[in-house]
Amino acid sequence: MLTQHIIRTAVEAALAEDAPYGDVTCETTIPADETGSAALTAREDGVMSGLDVFAAAFRAQNPRIETAPAIADGERFHAGQMLATVSGPVRDLLTAERVALNFTQRMSGIATMTASFVKAVNAIYADGYEREHGPVVRPRRYARTRIADTRKTTPGLRPFEKYAVVCGGGHNHRYGLSDAVMMKDNHLAALAARGIDLAGAISHVREQVGHTTHIEVEVDSLDQIPAVVEGGSDTIMLDNFTLADTRRGVELIDGRAIVEASGNMSLERVAAVAATGVDVISVGALTHSVRSIDLGLDWLEERP
Amino acid sequence: MLTQHIIRTAVEAALAEDAPYGDVTCETTIPADETGSAALTAREDGVMSGLDVFAAAFRAQNPRIETAPAIADGERFHAGQMLATVSGPVRDLLTAERVALNFTQRMSGIATMTASFVKAVNAIYADGYEREHGPVVRPRRYARTRIADTRKTTPGLRPFEKYAVVCGGGHNHRYGLSDAVMMKDNHLAALAARGIDLAGAISHVREQVGHTTHIEVEVDSLDQIPAVVEGGSDTIMLDNFTLADTRRGVELIDGRAIVEASGNMSLERVAAVAATGVDVISVGALTHSVRSIDLGLDWLEERP
Amino acid sequence: MLTQHIIRTAVEAALAEDAPYGDVTCETTIPADETGSAALTAREDGVMSGLDVFAAAFRAQNPRIETAPAIADGERFHAGQMLATVSGPVRDLLTAERVALNFTQRMSGIATMTASFVKAVNAIYADGYEREHGPVVRPRRYARTRIADTRKTTPGLRPFEKYAVVCGGGHNHRYGLSDAVMMKDNHLAALAARGIDLAGAISHVREQVGHTTHIEVEVDSLDQIPAVVEGGSDTIMLDNFTLADTRRGVELIDGRAIVEASGNMSLERVAAVAATGVDVISVGALTHSVRSIDLGLDWLEERP
Amino acid sequence: MLTQHIIRTAVEAALAEDAPYGDVTCETTIPADETGSAALTAREDGVMSGLDVFAAAFRAQNPRIETAPAIADGERFHAGQMLATVSGPVRDLLTAERVALNFTQRMSGIATMTASFVKAVNAIYADGYEREHGPVVRPRRYARTRIADTRKTTPGLRPFEKYAVVCGGGHNHRYGLSDAVMMKDNHLAALAARGIDLAGAISHVREQVGHTTHIEVEVDSLDQIPAVVEGGSDTIMLDNFTLADTRRGVELIDGRAIVEASGNMSLERVAAVAATGVDVISVGALTHSVRSIDLGLDWLEERP
Amino acid sequence: MLTQHIIRTAVEAALAEDAPYGDVTCETTIPADETGSAALTAREDGVMSGLDVFAAAFRAQNPRIETAPAIADGERFHAGQMLATVSGPVRDLLTAERVALNFTQRMSGIATMTASFVKAVNAIYADGYEREHGPVVRPRRYARTRIADTRKTTPGLRPFEKYAVVCGGGHNHRYGLSDAVMMKDNHLAALAARGIDLAGAISHVREQVGHTTHIEVEVDSLDQIPAVVEGGSDTIMLDNFTLADTRRGVELIDGRAIVEASGNMSLERVAAVAATGVDVISVGALTHSVRSIDLGLDWLEERP
Amino acid sequence: MLTQHIIRTAVEAALAEDAPYGDVTCETTIPADETGSAALTAREDGVMSGLDVFAAAFRAQNPRIETAPAIADGERFHAGQMLATVSGPVRDLLTAERVALNFTQRMSGIATMTASFVKAVNAIYADGYEREHGPVVRPRRYARTRIADTRKTTPGLRPFEKYAVVCGGGHNHRYGLSDAVMMKDNHLAALAARGIDLAGAISHVREQVGHTTHIEVEVDSLDQIPAVVEGGSDTIMLDNFTLADTRRGVELIDGRAIVEASGNMSLERVAAVAATGVDVISVGALTHSVRSIDLGLDWLEERP
Repeated sequence: MLTQHIIRTAVEAALAEDAPYGDVTCETTIPADETGSAALTAREDGVMSGLDVFAAAFRAQNPRIETAPAIADGERFHAGQMLATVSGPVRDLLTAERVALNFTQRMSGIATMTASFVKAVNAIYADGYEREHGPVVRPRRYARTRIADTRKTTPGLRPFEKYAVVCGGGHNHRYGLSDAVMMKDNHLAALAARGIDLAGAISHVREQVGHTTHIEVEVDSLDQIPAVVEGGSDTIMLDNFTLADTRRGVELIDGRAIVEASGNMSLERVAAVAATGVDVISVGALTHSVRSIDLGLDWLEERP
Repeated sequence: MLTQHIIRTAVEAALAEDAPYGDVTCETTIPADETGSAALTAREDGVMSGLDVFAAAFRAQNPRIETAPAIADGERFHAGQMLATVSGPVRDLLTAERVALNFTQRMSGIATMTASFVKAVNAIYADGYEREHGPVVRPRRYARTRIADTRKTTPGLRPFEKYAVVCGGGHNHRYGLSDAVMMKDNHLAALAARGIDLAGAISHVREQVGHTTHIEVEVDSLDQIPAVVEGGSDTIMLDNFTLADTRRGVELIDGRAIVEASGNMSLERVAAVAATGVDVISVGALTHSVRSIDLGLDWLEERP
Repeated sequence: MLTQHIIRTAVEAALAEDAPYGDVTCETTIPADETGSAALTAREDGVMSGLDVFAAAFRAQNPRIETAPAIADGERFHAGQMLATVSGPVRDLLTAERVALNFTQRMSGIATMTASFVKAVNAIYADGYEREHGPVVRPRRYARTRIADTRKTTPGLRPFEKYAVVCGGGHNHRYGLSDAVMMKDNHLAALAARGIDLAGAISHVREQVGHTTHIEVEVDSLDQIPAVVEGGSDTIMLDNFTLADTRRGVELIDGRAIVEASGNMSLERVAAVAATGVDVISVGALTHSVRSIDLGLDWLEERP
Repeated sequence: MLTQHIIRTAVEAALAEDAPYGDVTCETTIPADETGSAALTAREDGVMSGLDVFAAAFRAQNPRIETAPAIADGERFHAGQMLATVSGPVRDLLTAERVALNFTQRMSGIATMTASFVKAVNAIYADGYEREHGPVVRPRRYARTRIADTRKTTPGLRPFEKYAVVCGGGHNHRYGLSDAVMMKDNHLAALAARGIDLAGAISHVREQVGHTTHIEVEVDSLDQIPAVVEGGSDTIMLDNFTLADTRRGVELIDGRAIVEASGNMSLERVAAVAATGVDVISVGALTHSVRSIDLGLDWLEERP
Repeated sequence: MLTQHIIRTAVEAALAEDAPYGDVTCETTIPADETGSAALTAREDGVMSGLDVFAAAFRAQNPRIETAPAIADGERFHAGQMLATVSGPVRDLLTAERVALNFTQRMSGIATMTASFVKAVNAIYADGYEREHGPVVRPRRYARTRIADTRKTTPGLRPFEKYAVVCGGGHNHRYGLSDAVMMKDNHLAALAARGIDLAGAISHVREQVGHTTHIEVEVDSLDQIPAVVEGGSDTIMLDNFTLADTRRGVELIDGRAIVEASGNMSLERVAAVAATGVDVISVGALTHSVRSIDLGLDWLEERP
Repeated sequence: MLTQHIIRTAVEAALAEDAPYGDVTCETTIPADETGSAALTAREDGVMSGLDVFAAAFRAQNPRIETAPAIADGERFHAGQMLATVSGPVRDLLTAERVALNFTQRMSGIATMTASFVKAVNAIYADGYEREHGPVVRPRRYARTRIADTRKTTPGLRPFEKYAVVCGGGHNHRYGLSDAVMMKDNHLAALAARGIDLAGAISHVREQVGHTTHIEVEVDSLDQIPAVVEGGSDTIMLDNFTLADTRRGVELIDGRAIVEASGNMSLERVAAVAATGVDVISVGALTHSVRSIDLGLDWLEERP
C-alpha cells in the first residue's frame, strides 16, 4: 500500500516542513563537496519498518545519496545492530537525517508494537497454553486470530502506518470510509427511523453498494447478533464485549460471518480475547499511541 | 504558529485520506437532510489542545456544521467533561468525526504529557522541596526552568505538535533547520578539518547568518564549554550530561549563555535536571512517543 | 462517492484549464455588474447526472451565482425540458458555462447509456420474454442481474463517472487497484511459477489481505472454475465466455461465488448474457466510449 | 501543446487515482524482482496518438520501465499491429497498464475520428467529385478546408485531446477563453445595450486586446455579415447555417475574413459543408463523443 | 486576465511564504478579539493597480476583514491620498499588511511606469510637437502607437504584471509561448537549414497552427522585410533598429502587417520611435525593472 | 536558503506559466532532435546570482540539457563575459531560455545593487575617509556595518531574493513573520492598552517565545530607547532617525543591543548612516525596486 508516489510526496513535504528555507547550520559549516557515510543503527530491540522511506528521504534531499539496507522490513533487530548505510554529500546527509529518522522510528515503533500483540496471540496456540489458561477456540476463518489496525491513524500518514502494521505481522482493516461498509449504531438508528430493521439494514445497503464491497456491522449486545447474521453481514464486530459475551457471540455466529472483537484492547488482555475464537482483533493503540523506536545515525570512519 | 491556512490544508488532506471517494456507509444509510448534534466528551483526564482543528475538520466537510467549544485550549479537563458541541447534517458529522478526533486526541495527548513535565519541574520551586531533595538552583534567564520540544515531530504535523506543547505549558525550540543554528559534532568536525577551532566556529557562523539568527552549540563534555562561551554562543546545549556535570556546566557558563539540557529525558529525572539550574530542558518524547487522549463524540438527545 | 472536496478540486482545475489567464471576450464586452439568469435545458432525451457539479462550477467561478435544480440526478428528462436555472453576474455565467456543461453533458451521457443497459437487462424479467427468447435464469445473489462499470474510465474523472453509472441504475465495480483483489492470468502465472496452483492462489492472497478485502478471480475457460470455487474466491469473472459457456459456468459455480460476465458487452447482447443467470455484467463502454448528452443554457427574459 | 510537464502531472494523478494506496493484487502475487516485456497491440484499425503518454505512465510508475515505440503518433495502424513494446518489472507493468491504456485508447480514438472527418473533406478535391456532387469552392485562406476542434473537451484533458486532433490531421481552434476573442450573441447583446452596434463591437474589443489577439465573431444569419466584415473581424463563424446560407455567407465575406462553419457537424454532412468554400469546420464531437480505440497489452514470450 | 482563482492562489502562497508557521509577534502581543481600521495611503504620486489583490490578501488571512476602495484601478493618485480602507481583527490586519502591500506597490509601480511611457507617446500627437521635433507618422492600425509589455516578467506574477500594464494604459503582447507565434533568428535558421526560406517559413508555420494563432516575425535588418511581408506575417517586429531604419521599415511594410519596434526602449527615446509610425512599441523594462510605489497603511482613530 | 526543492518547484511553475500548453513557435519550426549549445553572456557589469536556478530551469524543461558554469555566484563579471554554457536539444533550450533569464537577471540585479550598498559602506573604513567626511564609529557587534534586506520582497520569490542579497555581500534580516519577533508601534500600543509598558512589553513576549527566538523592537524616537534597552530587546531598530539622532541612539544603546537603522535608505546616504556606528542597515530597495541585469544567450558556432 506504500507506493513510490506516496513515499516521494510525503518525504518531500517533510523535508520542506523541516527546512522551509534551507539548513542554516549546514550551509555555514559544511563544504558543499564533502562526502561521507553513516550507519543507521538500532539503539534498542525492535521490528524493522520503513527502509524504503528512509532511503527516499535522503534521495529526495539529494539524488546522489545512496542507501544500502542491511535488513529487510518486517525483520527483528537488536540494540546495536546496523540496519543500513547511507553515503553521499555530508551536508545533505545531515539535513535529511532527522526527517529520515522521524519516519523510520515511528514506523518501526508501530511494527514493534504490532509484533508484540501478534506474539501474545500466537502464544495461545502453543502446547500447554490451555492447561494453564483454559480452553482455546480456533477462529473459523483463519489459522490464527489476526491483529488488525483501525482508522485511528496519524492524519497524513495512514499508508505508512498501515504498512508498518503489516511489517509487524498484523493485518489491515478497511483503509478508510470509501472501501468497505461499517455500520454502527448511528447508521442503524437512521435506518430504523425510516422503518428498516437490523436484518433489513444489511440488504438495504447491499442492494446499493458494488459487489466487491464488504459489509461489516458493529453490535453492542448479544441479542443483535441473530438479526445481523440473518441479514448477511460479511463481518460482525463485537464492540466492547466481555470475554464471556465474546465467547458466546462466536458461538452464535457460528462461522456464518467473520467475527471481530474491538474496544480498548491491551497487550495483557489480547490473548484471552483471541482464545474465544474471534477471527480478528482490532487494536487502535497500534497507531494512536506509538512509542518511536530509538534509531540513530553513526558516522563511519571513512569520512574525513 | 497554527495559522488558519495550515489548519485548513491539513484537515482537507486528512478528510481526503480517510474518504478518498466518499463514505460508502453514510451515503447508503443516512438521509442527506437529517441534522443532529453531538458532544465532544473526555473519556479520561487531560489538557485540551486542538479545538480550532476539531471545528475546522467538520467545517471542511460541510461549511454548515457549527462547533461551540465549552473549554479553551490549554485548560485541564476531567473524564466525562463535555468539551464542545457540534451540530449540522448527521451524514457529514459522522464522516468527519474520526478525522476531527484523530487530530484532537493526539494534540491533547501532547499537551497532557507536556503538562506533566512542566508540573514535575514546577514542583522543585515549592516550599520544602530542597529539604527533601537537596539544593535547587534557579535558572539565570527565566523564572523557572522551561520544558521545550524538539524536531522529533510527526512528519507533516509539526505546527500542530508545537502548538500542543505550548498548550501544555511548554515552550518551543527552534521550528526547524531554517530558523536557528544548532551546531553539533559533525558541523564542528567539518570546521575543524578546515582549521577552525571551537571558539572560531561560532564567529565563523555568526559572520554569515543574519543578526536575528540565534546560535546554539551542542557540547558533549565539560571541557568544550569555555571555548563555546568564549566564542559567544547564544545557547549551549549539554547533551546527555550526568546530573553532576550538568550542575558543573551551569556554573561554568555562569549566565553567559542560555543553558539547555537534553538527552533521553524522563518524567522521573526531569525535576533533578531542572534543579541544576539549566534554563531549558528539551524532551523528544513530547512528540515522538505520544499516547492519544481518549475523547469521543456522544450524540445529544435532540437528534431524531 | 462524489465528495464536495472532489467536486470543488475538479471544477477549479477545469476553470483554470479553460481560462488560464481570464476570459478575454467577456472582460472586454460584459460590464462587471450586469446580472442575469439562464435555464439549463435538455436538447435531447436522457438521464440526469451531475447537477451538483454543474452548480459547483458556477459557484467556483463566482460564489454569488445561485443554481436551482428542477430535477434530481438519476431522473429521466426529455428534449426541451428545463433542468435547472442559474442566476448571477452575466460575465461569470458566460465564463463558466462551457466547463459546467462539459461535466454535466458527459455525466448525463454515461447515466443515459447505463440506463439503456439496465433497461435491456430488466426486460428479460418481463412476462413473455422467455416465450420469445428462451429460458431466463435468475441470478443467485441479487434480484436482477446488475450492470457494473470497469476501470476503463477517463483519467482524472473516475469518481464522476462511477457516480454517473449509479445515476443510470448501474452498480460500481471496485474503485481501483487498492480496494479489491482481481487476479488475472498474469497474477496466476506468477504464482504458478512459484508452485502455487489455482486453488492455492486464492488462499495465498487471502492470507495476506485484510478481512474486508474482496477477492475476485478472472477465468478464461470452464475448466478453471472448480479450482477457483474450491479456493474460495468471492467473485469469479467469466472473461469473454460464449453464452453457452457462461450458462455452464453459472451452473458449475452454483451460488458458491458471485458470477461476473465481462468482455465486449454490447446493448444487443446484454439481455442474453443476463438470462444465463450471472450476477453482474461489467461494461467498459459505459465510460470509455461515451456520447455526451446535448444540453444547453438558454437565457431567460428577465435579463436586461 | 503536450509538454513533458503536462504529461507527467496527468499520468501521476491518474496512477494515484487508480491505486490511491497501492495495487493489492500485484503486491500479494508478483515478486518485486520479476521482469518481463509486453507489446502494445491494436485490436482494431486506427490512427495513433499518445505514445509519449503511454511511455510516461509506465515511467512514472517505475523509472526503470522502458518503452520502445514501433510507430509514430499520427500514423495509421491496422488490427493486430504491434505499436510499442514495454519492458521492466512485471509488478509495475501490470499496475500501470490500465492507466497507460486509458490515455492512449482515448487519444487514438480522437485521432481516428478526426482522420475520418479530414478524409471526408479531402475527398471533395478528388477528380470526379464535382461531377457527382456538384460544384466545390476552394477556401480562400487554406489549400483545403480544415477540420478544427472546440472547447467541448473532457475537463482536465484539453491538451491531450487537442494534440490528438492534430495527430488525426485536424487543426486546433483557440485553446480556451484566454487566448482569442469569440463574440457570441450574449456578448454582442451586452454591447448593444450600451449603444455599441455590431461593427462597433469589433473595434471596441480590438482597442482593448493585445495586437496578437485574434477576434472571431459568431453570426446567426446572413444579414449580420456585412457589419461584421466592416468591423474587421478576423474570423466569422457561421453558426448552424444551412448549406445554401453557408455558400452565400462565403460569397458575402469574399475573403475579407476567415470563414468558419459550426453546428452539429456529422461525418455525413461535412463534405457538403466543405464544398461551400468555408476555411474551417469545427466539430465538437471530435472530443465530446469519443469511442476509445481498442488497444491491449500482449505479454511477450521472453517473460519467465 | 486576473481571475479570482489566480488572485486567491497567489495571495495564499504569499501569506504562507511570509508566515510559514504564524506571526510570532502578533500572537504574543495582540488580543485575538481586538478590531480596528486602517487606510491605504499613497506616499507618492502614481497610478493605481491591484486593489482586488490588496483586498484578497486580507480576506485570505481572515474572511472577516472588509476592504472599501476609494479609487479604481487605472486611476491616478497623488501623495497623501487615501486609496482604500480595511477593517477587521487587528492581529490579522497586521499579519497580512506586508503581503498586501508587496503586491499593490509592485503593481502600482508597473502601472505608473507604463503610464509614463504612454504619456510620452501621446505627447507626439499634440499640437506643436511636429514643429519642434520633426514629422510624426500616424500608425496604420491604431489611432496612436501602443506601448506593450514583454515576457520579461517576474516568475509567478505574469498575470498580475500584465494586468498592471493595462491599468497604466498599455497593451499586452502575447501572454507566453503557447498563444502566439514569434519567430526569431534561431527559428528561421532551423527552417533555413531544412531549405525553407524566409517567406516560406511563415506559410510553413501557418499551415500547422490554428486559424486563431497570430504569427509575428522578428527581423534584424531592412532587407528581410520584403520576404516577411510576402510570407504574410501578421506582425513584423523591428529589433533594435535605428530611428531611420524604423522609419524606412514602416514605409516598406506599408500597412500590410502590424509593425512593432523593440529593443532597450527608454522613456527618453520612446516618443521619437513612436513618431516613425510603428503600431506597437514593446518595453521590457515595464516589468523587469520596476520601482515599487510607496504605499502605506495608516491606522484610523476609531481603533482603541 | 535556496534548497533544491524550492528551486525545482519555482522553475517548474515558471515554465508552466510561460508555456501553459507548449511553445507553438518551436514546435512548428525546430526539429525535435536538433542539438546545440549557447553561452550565457553578460551585456553589462554586475555580480552573479542564480546559476543553480539557471541550470535548473533548463533541466526542468529537459533533463538532458547540461549547464557548465564559468563563474560562481557572488563573483563580479563585466560586460561581454561568458558566465555559463548550456547544451542540449535546441527546441528545449529556446523554450526555457526566457524563464532561465528572468530568474537570473533579477537575482543578479539584486546582488549587484546589494554590492553597491556594501561597497559604499566599506568605503568609510578606508584610510582618509574620516579626514574628508568626519568621524567614523565602528559598530559594536560586527567588524563593519552590515547591509540587510527586508520583507519587501516579490511575492513567491523571497528565498531567491534573500539568497541574492547574500551573493551581493549583504546579510539577511528575519525570513518572515514566524522566525523572529519585530515589535512596532501597533504591537506596543496593543500591549500598552492592557497596561504593559515598553520595558514590560519585551519580557511579556520573551516569556512566551522559544529561547531561540530573537526579539527586535522598532523605536521612533530617542526617548523610547532607555526602556527598550532595559527591557532586554536583542535588537533595537531606529526607524527613520536623522543622522544626529542615529548617532545619539548608538551611544544610548551602548552595545547592550544590536542597533539597526532603517527607512528610505539610499546609496547616497548609506555611508553616513554606517559611520554612526549602527550594526545593521536594512534597505527595502534591494528587493522592492530592482533593475534586472542584462544577460543574454549567444548561440555557439558548433550548432548546425
